Amino acid sequence: MSKHRVVVVGAGFAGLQLVHDLKGQPVDVTIIDRRNHHLFQPLLYQVATTLLATSEIAWPIRRLFRNRPEVRTLLGEAVAVDRERKSVALKDGQSIPYDTLVLATGARHAYFGHDEWEGVAPGLKTLEDATTIRRRILLAFERAELEDDPETRKALLTFAIIGGGPTGVELAGIIAELAHRTLVSEFRAIDTRAARIMLIEAGPRILPVFTQELSDYGRQALEKLGVEVRTGTPVTECGPEGVRIGEEFVAARTLIWAAGVQASKAAAWLGADADRAGRAIVGRDLTVPGSPEIFVIGDTAAVVTEDGKPVPGVAPAAKQQGAYVAKVVASRLAGKPAPTGFSYRHQGNLATIGRSAAVVDLGRIKLKGALAWWVWGLAHIYFLIGTRSRLAVAMSWLWIFLSGQHSARLITQKETLKDDSAP
Amino acid sequence: MSKHRVVVVGAGFAGLQLVHDLKGQPVDVTIIDRRNHHLFQPLLYQVATTLLATSEIAWPIRRLFRNRPEVRTLLGEAVAVDRERKSVALKDGQSIPYDTLVLATGARHAYFGHDEWEGVAPGLKTLEDATTIRRRILLAFERAELEDDPETRKALLTFAIIGGGPTGVELAGIIAELAHRTLVSEFRAIDTRAARIMLIEAGPRILPVFTQELSDYGRQALEKLGVEVRTGTPVTECGPEGVRIGEEFVAARTLIWAAGVQASKAAAWLGADADRAGRAIVGRDLTVPGSPEIFVIGDTAAVVTEDGKPVPGVAPAAKQQGAYVAKVVASRLAGKPAPTGFSYRHQGNLATIGRSAAVVDLGRIKLKGALAWWVWGLAHIYFLIGTRSRLAVAMSWLWIFLSGQHSARLITQKETLKDDSAP
Repeated sequence: MSKHRVVVVGAGFAGLQLVHDLKGQPVDVTIIDRRNHHLFQPLLYQVATTLLATSEIAWPIRRLFRNRPEVRTLLGEAVAVDRERKSVALKDGQSIPYDTLVLATGARHAYFGHDEWEGVAPGLKTLEDATTIRRRILLAFERAELEDDPETRKALLTFAIIGGGPTGVELAGIIAELAHRTLVSEFRAIDTRAARIMLIEAGPRILPVFTQELSDYGRQALEKLGVEVRTGTPVTECGPEGVRIGEEFVAARTLIWAAGVQASKAAAWLGADADRAGRAIVGRDLTVPGSPEIFVIGDTAAVVTEDGKPVPGVAPAAKQQGAYVAKVVASRLAGKPAPTGFSYRHQGNLATIGRSAAVVDLGRIKLKGALAWWVWGLAHIYFLIGTRSRLAVAMSWLWIFLSGQHSARLITQKETLKDDSAP
Repeated sequence: MSKHRVVVVGAGFAGLQLVHDLKGQPVDVTIIDRRNHHLFQPLLYQVATTLLATSEIAWPIRRLFRNRPEVRTLLGEAVAVDRERKSVALKDGQSIPYDTLVLATGARHAYFGHDEWEGVAPGLKTLEDATTIRRRILLAFERAELEDDPETRKALLTFAIIGGGPTGVELAGIIAELAHRTLVSEFRAIDTRAARIMLIEAGPRILPVFTQELSDYGRQALEKLGVEVRTGTPVTECGPEGVRIGEEFVAARTLIWAAGVQASKAAAWLGADADRAGRAIVGRDLTVPGSPEIFVIGDTAAVVTEDGKPVPGVAPAAKQQGAYVAKVVASRLAGKPAPTGFSYRHQGNLATIGRSAAVVDLGRIKLKGALAWWVWGLAHIYFLIGTRSRLAVAMSWLWIFLSGQHSARLITQKETLKDDSAP
């Protein structure tokens, strides 16, 4: 008799943790992802802002499981689930049967009904998003250097980051440092210090998941770096010429979207109930009502804790859910009672502001400033996969710290775009 | 009175050396390139084969000259030269006036009248070329893993590299190591060791610029790595299904072009005579006949030495030409007689075969095997720009050497292809 088949869709934090924790269980695992790599999303903003190289925060999925012969990695895009026949349909027509299915397909950025803004205000979820944003930021300075018209030049040197959560804050901080420090001596026609970097948040304050004190500190630290923080007014229009904040139009050629996410289509595949963000509503055991063999975890699931609070869409929550599902699967296979419902242990919130300050909220312990940056930096190096990546990222940061020079200031992608039809 | 204006088009080895050597001269320098980065082309094959990351072999041009206030860097594409009015036209409509013009715009791969082959058999000249080839190589293995039909699977696992010069040899060696070593433990449905890697050379032997002995050694070393070397028969057809070698058709889904180059359009811009490869024919002083203020150097120039031999299109030759032009410009400005014609000092030929063998021909000294690999490796680390890159590349190689794992096995680019119309 063949072994119990666990099919995992999505190799993000949740999916990887699950497969990792299934080690030693009598199962055949298939992990399916659209991409060949796992991406360390918490540092993606550093690729978008030229601090890190793409390969420093991404690892081939199949390499991570090379010593696990029972784990099969498939590069493919799931497009449907057949709950009756228990199989996942891939875009290329293949059908992958399962005994247990785990959907961990994450989320994309959401434009609140304005999908047409995506072309002018890209979000940050994939490596390509990061290199696209990197290219746009660098090209804006290059074009400003060539531009004679002062109005156009001003628009080229205006950067609007929409969304005041950690990603928006982190992007704004590094872009400000690029303009005010890194690039200053390299341009001849423009003064890059004249660049205007705006962080726009519709809510009353930036970093809303942090305490008021840390949020205030974050704002002051950003302003010290030269970022103009706008709170309390939503963006009402994004276009190639600029952004409208409430009624005011600001000419800005580089817009970046960091405001809100939309879950992947896992709920739709299952015909399951979803919340407003499209996340599948799961039970306390992370299964879909009516299908105890189907789990939905990570950013594509709407999970509530014992006390009724929603679990946030952060990497530690995804990992904890992956670990929980592994335990449930192991218990079921062993014929033991499954663990009680998933409980979430909040590990804290972290965000950096530029290259030397951060805010860290670990519950009882709250840190800000340079010490917080080091705590943040060490934590992230620790969570990277493999010695090689840890060394590489540590070296990149050390180099930036010592020399002020970023190592990945490359404008790429443009010329091979014709390659769309490639095999 | 304004200073003498030197305009340099192209920031390859020739252009960079020239601008470097003009330091201290009473000139205003404008360096124009289509890309924002200088690329270390000798290691580009390592990006294409997942050994190195893009940012390890590319540097922002304007960063290299940040401490030279008289050097202005422009991101732009030259499209014409007006010899009468002494100006270079850029694609965006701007016109850049010069007193001295140096065209160092390099070369692209050439398909010998079969430009339609480019889509199926990409060449290797830019970072995007490298990531395109990397993506195709990795995707071929991924698709083979998913493929049920044995014939299609075989075609997916057949890699044909066309051209037996150093680039072709280097690509074939690393692809063979990927298939026979790095990837073996990671696939479940296929045995990557069954992959067929073919190196196809129309001439009688590979590495024709090397001695017969080194060329023979290279062939044996490749065959030991599992590469099938075909010499003496030209490729007569490239298509999505495979390659025709003479009369024989070989089903192969991944073709890479490493056979011959075509100069950039510098000769056409000038209305100057060109040789068969499109290179502008210049005088012994590297100027264009009739315009002593216009120099053409590097891969886009046809230069002959005192003894009538053509100068090869290699990095040291380009650098020597850049250095020579800097001397001529300095002499002219000082009112001194210009140095006699350019003379080329050949520094040798190098090529690697996989990750542990190489052939090195320094004239009197000829090396092969592991020692040659170390000579090659140290030479290339020495020629990289900046301590940061040297450390990073040394660390990548050391890591590969110790662990056998490549650090940049990423399939990227596909999803943002829609981004073509981006600003």
